[in-house]
Amino acid sequence: MALLVEKTTSGREYKVKDMSQADFGRLEIELAEVEMPGLMSCRTEFGPSQPFKGAKITGSLHMTIQTAVLIETLTALGAEVRWCSCNIFSTQDHAAAAIARDSAAVFAWKGETLQEYWWCTERALDWGPGGGPDLIVDDGGDATLLIHEGVKAEEEYEKTGKVPDPNSTDNAEFQIVLTIIRDGLKSDPKKYTRMKERLVGVSEETTTGVKRLYQMQANGTLLFPAINVNDSVTKSKFDNLYGCRHSLPDGLMRATDVMIAGKVAVVAGYGDVGKGCAAAMKQAGARVIVTEIDPICALQALMEGLQVLTLEDVVSEADIFVTTTGNKDIIMVDHMRKMKNNAIVCNIGHFDNEIDMHGLETYPGVKRITIKPQTDRWVFPDTNSGIIVLAEGRLMNLGCATGHPSFVMSCSFTNQVIAQLELWNERKTGKYEKKVYVLPKHLDEKVAALHLGKLGAKLTKLTKDQADYISVPVEGPYKPPHYRY
Amino acid sequence: MALLVEKTTSGREYKVKDMSQADFGRLEIELAEVEMPGLMSCRTEFGPSQPFKGAKITGSLHMTIQTAVLIETLTALGAEVRWCSCNIFSTQDHAAAAIARDSAAVFAWKGETLQEYWWCTERALDWGPGGGPDLIVDDGGDATLLIHEGVKAEEEYEKTGKVPDPNSTDNAEFQIVLTIIRDGLKSDPKKYTRMKERLVGVSEETTTGVKRLYQMQANGTLLFPAINVNDSVTKSKFDNLYGCRHSLPDGLMRATDVMIAGKVAVVAGYGDVGKGCAAAMKQAGARVIVTEIDPICALQALMEGLQVLTLEDVVSEADIFVTTTGNKDIIMVDHMRKMKNNAIVCNIGHFDNEIDMHGLETYPGVKRITIKPQTDRWVFPDTNSGIIVLAEGRLMNLGCATGHPSFVMSCSFTNQVIAQLELWNERKTGKYEKKVYVLPKHLDEKVAALHLGKLGAKLTKLTKDQADYISVPVEGPYKPPHYRY
Amino acid sequence: MALLVEKTTSGREYKVKDMSQADFGRLEIELAEVEMPGLMSCRTEFGPSQPFKGAKITGSLHMTIQTAVLIETLTALGAEVRWCSCNIFSTQDHAAAAIARDSAAVFAWKGETLQEYWWCTERALDWGPGGGPDLIVDDGGDATLLIHEGVKAEEEYEKTGKVPDPNSTDNAEFQIVLTIIRDGLKSDPKKYTRMKERLVGVSEETTTGVKRLYQMQANGTLLFPAINVNDSVTKSKFDNLYGCRHSLPDGLMRATDVMIAGKVAVVAGYGDVGKGCAAAMKQAGARVIVTEIDPICALQALMEGLQVLTLEDVVSEADIFVTTTGNKDIIMVDHMRKMKNNAIVCNIGHFDNEIDMHGLETYPGVKRITIKPQTDRWVFPDTNSGIIVLAEGRLMNLGCATGHPSFVMSCSFTNQVIAQLELWNERKTGKYEKKVYVLPKHLDEKVAALHLGKLGAKLTKLTKDQADYISVPVEGPYKPPHYRY
Amino acid sequence: MALLVEKTTSGREYKVKDMSQADFGRLEIELAEVEMPGLMSCRTEFGPSQPFKGAKITGSLHMTIQTAVLIETLTALGAEVRWCSCNIFSTQDHAAAAIARDSAAVFAWKGETLQEYWWCTERALDWGPGGGPDLIVDDGGDATLLIHEGVKAEEEYEKTGKVPDPNSTDNAEFQIVLTIIRDGLKSDPKKYTRMKERLVGVSEETTTGVKRLYQMQANGTLLFPAINVNDSVTKSKFDNLYGCRHSLPDGLMRATDVMIAGKVAVVAGYGDVGKGCAAAMKQAGARVIVTEIDPICALQALMEGLQVLTLEDVVSEADIFVTTTGNKDIIMVDHMRKMKNNAIVCNIGHFDNEIDMHGLETYPGVKRITIKPQTDRWVFPDTNSGIIVLAEGRLMNLGCATGHPSFVMSCSFTNQVIAQLELWNERKTGKYEKKVYVLPKHLDEKVAALHLGKLGAKLTKLTKDQADYISVPVEGPYKPPHYRY
Repeated sequence: MALLVEKTTSGREYKVKDMSQADFGRLEIELAEVEMPGLMSCRTEFGPSQPFKGAKITGSLHMTIQTAVLIETLTALGAEVRWCSCNIFSTQDHAAAAIARDSAAVFAWKGETLQEYWWCTERALDWGPGGGPDLIVDDGGDATLLIHEGVKAEEEYEKTGKVPDPNSTDNAEFQIVLTIIRDGLKSDPKKYTRMKERLVGVSEETTTGVKRLYQMQANGTLLFPAINVNDSVTKSKFDNLYGCRHSLPDGLMRATDVMIAGKVAVVAGYGDVGKGCAAAMKQAGARVIVTEIDPICALQALMEGLQVLTLEDVVSEADIFVTTTGNKDIIMVDHMRKMKNNAIVCNIGHFDNEIDMHGLETYPGVKRITIKPQTDRWVFPDTNSGIIVLAEGRLMNLGCATGHPSFVMSCSFTNQVIAQLELWNERKTGKYEKKVYVLPKHLDEKVAALHLGKLGAKLTKLTKDQADYISVPVEGPYKPPHYRY
Repeated sequence: MALLVEKTTSGREYKVKDMSQADFGRLEIELAEVEMPGLMSCRTEFGPSQPFKGAKITGSLHMTIQTAVLIETLTALGAEVRWCSCNIFSTQDHAAAAIARDSAAVFAWKGETLQEYWWCTERALDWGPGGGPDLIVDDGGDATLLIHEGVKAEEEYEKTGKVPDPNSTDNAEFQIVLTIIRDGLKSDPKKYTRMKERLVGVSEETTTGVKRLYQMQANGTLLFPAINVNDSVTKSKFDNLYGCRHSLPDGLMRATDVMIAGKVAVVAGYGDVGKGCAAAMKQAGARVIVTEIDPICALQALMEGLQVLTLEDVVSEADIFVTTTGNKDIIMVDHMRKMKNNAIVCNIGHFDNEIDMHGLETYPGVKRITIKPQTDRWVFPDTNSGIIVLAEGRLMNLGCATGHPSFVMSCSFTNQVIAQLELWNERKTGKYEKKVYVLPKHLDEKVAALHLGKLGAKLTKLTKDQADYISVPVEGPYKPPHYRY
Repeated sequence: MALLVEKTTSGREYKVKDMSQADFGRLEIELAEVEMPGLMSCRTEFGPSQPFKGAKITGSLHMTIQTAVLIETLTALGAEVRWCSCNIFSTQDHAAAAIARDSAAVFAWKGETLQEYWWCTERALDWGPGGGPDLIVDDGGDATLLIHEGVKAEEEYEKTGKVPDPNSTDNAEFQIVLTIIRDGLKSDPKKYTRMKERLVGVSEETTTGVKRLYQMQANGTLLFPAINVNDSVTKSKFDNLYGCRHSLPDGLMRATDVMIAGKVAVVAGYGDVGKGCAAAMKQAGARVIVTEIDPICALQALMEGLQVLTLEDVVSEADIFVTTTGNKDIIMVDHMRKMKNNAIVCNIGHFDNEIDMHGLETYPGVKRITIKPQTDRWVFPDTNSGIIVLAEGRLMNLGCATGHPSFVMSCSFTNQVIAQLELWNERKTGKYEKKVYVLPKHLDEKVAALHLGKLGAKLTKLTKDQADYISVPVEGPYKPPHYRY
Repeated sequence: MALLVEKTTSGREYKVKDMSQADFGRLEIELAEVEMPGLMSCRTEFGPSQPFKGAKITGSLHMTIQTAVLIETLTALGAEVRWCSCNIFSTQDHAAAAIARDSAAVFAWKGETLQEYWWCTERALDWGPGGGPDLIVDDGGDATLLIHEGVKAEEEYEKTGKVPDPNSTDNAEFQIVLTIIRDGLKSDPKKYTRMKERLVGVSEETTTGVKRLYQMQANGTLLFPAINVNDSVTKSKFDNLYGCRHSLPDGLMRATDVMIAGKVAVVAGYGDVGKGCAAAMKQAGARVIVTEIDPICALQALMEGLQVLTLEDVVSEADIFVTTTGNKDIIMVDHMRKMKNNAIVCNIGHFDNEIDMHGLETYPGVKRITIKPQTDRWVFPDTNSGIIVLAEGRLMNLGCATGHPSFVMSCSFTNQVIAQLELWNERKTGKYEKKVYVLPKHLDEKVAALHLGKLGAKLTKLTKDQADYISVPVEGPYKPPHYRY
């Protein structure tokens, strides 16, 4: 795919796979709207006052149908938006087409190369001469990373004239990041510096991205305020848990059509994502074995009737392996060699380094047979036995299926909208310093409340007397900050 | 699609969508083989003796990847095979291509018209001058129906010279059947009579087809022996139950991406299929309401914590409706008009008459919006509210997903192979009269046994003393015929 | 306890533990009545016509609160009743007291010796000079056995003058049976012969009892008609399954207070009882391993995510062992020796020979520590490790808890009432020969229907058109006899 | 029961129901030890160094078998202990007897009056002339409350000579507290002041008790340091959740023998306790309806397929009502009047004021029929319909069954031991001020780790490289403080 920015008749930039899918995308967006009451409520409540008037928002977040509804909520509130995906396989091309045609500048397609991926990220951040963005919606932290690395390089360059050296790292992807920054330095040595000066803040979606932000806060290197959306209860205890409970079997079925009942499934990690995955596999009739480092999570797994063992204990008898850890080097090529023929290996946790893809790809004599896109059989020469790897080790629910369903994403994305509003509304008050913040509990409860009606629920109301008895306001928030749900 | 039979280089007839998908089909067939231990065991056990040598088998059964493994098991045992699908949406085109190229005469593609469907059925039955088939593998009974109707017409024609009148019926599909027979009478007035005389027997897969067979047996009109494969325990208590438990959510997810958790799902019918569907919806976090006519099945639903109500009670508050009854007129257009906007309506039971598609299509002012193939939104003019109908009211797991997974189909299809072998081996002994038979329990137990190793199970063995104590042979069968499992 | 028959002020015989518990029993009987809609409907429907007028019914069936409601349903319909328990531990003494005081001749208490047990059975069969019984309600077949053995002995005695020799058998319990018969022969050498001549028939409750009846039918030794109540769907698929799902954890908790979550539970046998037990353990958070001889049941277990192994594979790592097989010699003393300290061993299937109690009791140096009645810790001398055996190897749900709950027993017992009515009403028509019969399906469906209202269910009604389409009567029965539910 | 302190032969004080049950208690304590690996590990790790040498510990916590193992862990570590129950129905008399005989001064029996209850609490705090306690183990905060109220009264008395007036409150129980304090003032006007001066701290077990402590901290009235054990993950996410999942059905079964399957169960509150209760009812086959004030918890219930409604919506159709809120006035007498006949009403959350027992007891014409202790049927005069109230509205799992099982209590109580150790070890360092503290995460993880071996679990170990990648120490703690599990 030639990397040329295209333009709509109205002059908005974009780069998508196939603009003719825009109508199909629009139809699915309309279906999704019915399933996303939180976002639609935001349009009703805030739309009339156009709070984002003048705000330029860059998003780096899986360009799916659900994200399309998020983007059009932001634009409905007055924002101008540029967008890229945060994963090379996660774009739904019809969603990208519809948004590119109708609402925002999109640079995303399913099956980007890493080179293309970072080109798209650059484009989403490139607001042209007028400058921008004002706000970032981030997922995994790649947009934030690029700016931070860019600023670091520009400062070094200003001080010493040195440019980043891509060969300073082994990491193939980071080499690309450094190359982009190096090449940019020549044409505009202040690009990222201007960005960070203008930036009001970022709201971040994921455990992984949030971890990066807290590290930068701890190191004192965070360049702008950040709101940790991941740790809203209505995000991490819903999207991570119930989203994955839905989309893990979805991805497995679409990619492999394998019968889950009767199989042995290993779930590496029993955090929120792992809990959702283990529940899904158990409910579908698999026998589930969990691997964990944390004794508390391990004990939770045991209480649910799951076995807790190490990967080594079960590697040769399990049928399905799912990584959910947020860490690296979970399933190594040496594990994969010992697996049963056609064992399925996939990742729903984090980057593709949860699975040792590098080790697999470079294993002497290994043969890759692509069954269909995102479903590969890898055959080892010595055993003639193969394993099936989904989405090249990247997030399988986005690579092999369509990610989480609309309803649960409405919870996550309503948090995003509220976080963006909060940053933008307080941009001049100094309320937010260069730190990481969590949304206050009453907003978290509000997000939940917006999603109850759709499911026919009726809440009980406290009397004043009862509220006093447990020392909470009648209208909430109802729980102390440390409450775990 | 022009209805012209094509030929492979080896001269075998076929008609499929796209022969270039044969390689992809082959790859998926190879994956499926690993998941179908019962069929592969049949190849190992019976292949060397070529028991089907000389047998011509016609199959009318969803032309999927799993069926491909069945077909190639039949050919591996010596049979010559012609095949069509038993549902206009259920063919997987890559499976059809691989089989057409490599193994058997296939006439099937996804999205046939009814006209095309019956043309394919005729082709599968048409063995040319040499005559045939000897055996039929049937699913739903359409091949059997065509022969029975054909013979009836030929007898009438011989006696009275009268040909069938398509206008004698309201049923659009049956009109096509009569037309085909009428047109055939002119060129060959003994075609079906010769077929029935040669036919050794049929083995039938489904509840619906079996019901037809028992009716013909009761009426004394059954023309050849039939083995009821549906009521093997290893078929009806596995395929119907666990197959649907797998493929209902699969179909829902692929067609609509809707979040099942939190929704209200109505399952019409709580037989084996309904039990599987209700379990799937409950496990995915839906609240399930069952409708039933049979008080025993209703009481079973209650014992599982499901509510039992009538469709009228819940039609306006549920989100997902699934018919599993094997009956007609379950969800009528008047029900559909009262449903919530974007309620999902689908059928996994039987023919498309479980849902009143005719009423819907002819409702004044109704608007059909095709989101994507097999996913239509129907908007009523008065309410401007829409419902989503899957697979045009036909089996949604085959129309919107890929049907049941390989492992459970291996159980069903191993029964088919054993039934075909039994019919063929006994073709000259008179063991089977023109009646409907069930496979003996020791073969049923054998089918199960062939599937245990793949799942790592180890059986306990009775001692002689224990076997005597409960009055069974050490090697089984272990249960009386009336045992319900 | 001295074995003397006592009499109420009204002159009715009884022998119970403590008549002062009658008021407590009455209160619980009244609670149970609300939970037993099937039995209460029988009283309403049949009570006025007093169909059992003149009938003398002997029951041998766990003398619990639920059985009390059964007995008082029989008396409400006009019968005269004598009763004993069919298990030495299963009597609830307050239920026995209430019935003895108010309604029927009861001979039963919790914790009978085997000697006492058979004395009670004799008493329940002893209707005095007027003769009787006319009908038997049996559970496990002990009343039926005693009569059959008695008749056999009387015939032998008449022919040869020989009396039974208790030393002819190793089985301690059967020695008692023979002793009773031998001793009876002296005083009345025609007692059992007269009984069998008068007897209209027996209705039998359990898998075990039914198996005995079919064996006698096969051998041609069955002395009177029998109705197999066990195989009514509303019995075996409810009582066996849902009853055990309820009462297994109940018994475990009352006996041991052990936390089930996180434990490994082995369920021997995956029939209806085993399915209920496995479901209960899984739901409570245990990891469940099933042992099976039948490949079909084994495959069902696998489809539910349960592991299928042999007892030998897991004997040293499991925490809870439950036998449900209906066979003998399932858990032997050599297994028990290898178990973890304080492993729990119990039987919910059949007689106490599922567990090798004899081997345990006679193991050299073994020490029995009674924690409380029906909960014993047995310590092996070599390992100093102990296991916990419930109810001395007898049915633990009746020994350690209160058996199945009222609602599910209402299903079983309504079948009993209907079976008794059927036998009695047809006593002169010759409809029932000396064979084993199952109740017709419409009565089975009726039993279910009587239990729906209590749970708030509403049935759907077939239209005539729909009924014709599936070839059933509008009012049922809806399923063919071979249908498995 | 005359309120006279008795003495063992060794001179230790006690007051229990029946000392002859001590042997039975000892046997059950020995069983429990095998199930409480956390406590037993504390004995092994800390016993030799006798860290509690010289410490006088007063406990106010359900005097059950599990608590017995806690008490003997404290004494094994060198402490001297006095104990009372924190609930009038929760004592297991055999446990109390065994501890009184062997290990500590116990004042507790099942079925205390409120008067007796507070007398016991006084006795547990009364260490005689030598003074004490040094530490308090509290559950619900009653011991802490008595000291705080005592000190308040003594201060007022010293200042103004005024004594507390029991008539100043409507609350019957608080009247007793004030009476006790008033009467004590006469004999020793500095008793509680001396106590608070000596007290090193309290560790508190429950949500309710912790809430009181945080209120006192907020008001500045907290008199000594407190460790909030409730909010250890290994307490609130285990005991509250999995403990109740076990003990709710246990209590229901023992009290009523009611079949849970098929019933409609209303769970008021969906916190940790409510989650456990709802899971238990759902698993047992009930249809569960949740009532909630908090939209987040409500949304969680919906995601699990539970209906969320108000009590008013369902009061007349549900069968079982369980309160878990920690608030008051949840089920009022007006609700109870509208319930179905024999609806079951019980509380597993908090004090007996969750249920309007006062309204019920004083309802004109209401009739109380005691089925058995802790199981009462209350009949309303107007409807002649009754409801069944368990444990007089107090914690039904302790009143009707035996509370939570040993294994989960081992988690909770290991936190207690660690908290007590922490307070005692730091008694002179000033580490703990008059505030409420939570145990650090590494101790929480340690508690979990101590419970894994018993369940056969094996943890995965991080490599240094992996630990660095996610920025945690190799040996933990692994999660940030805000992590919700």
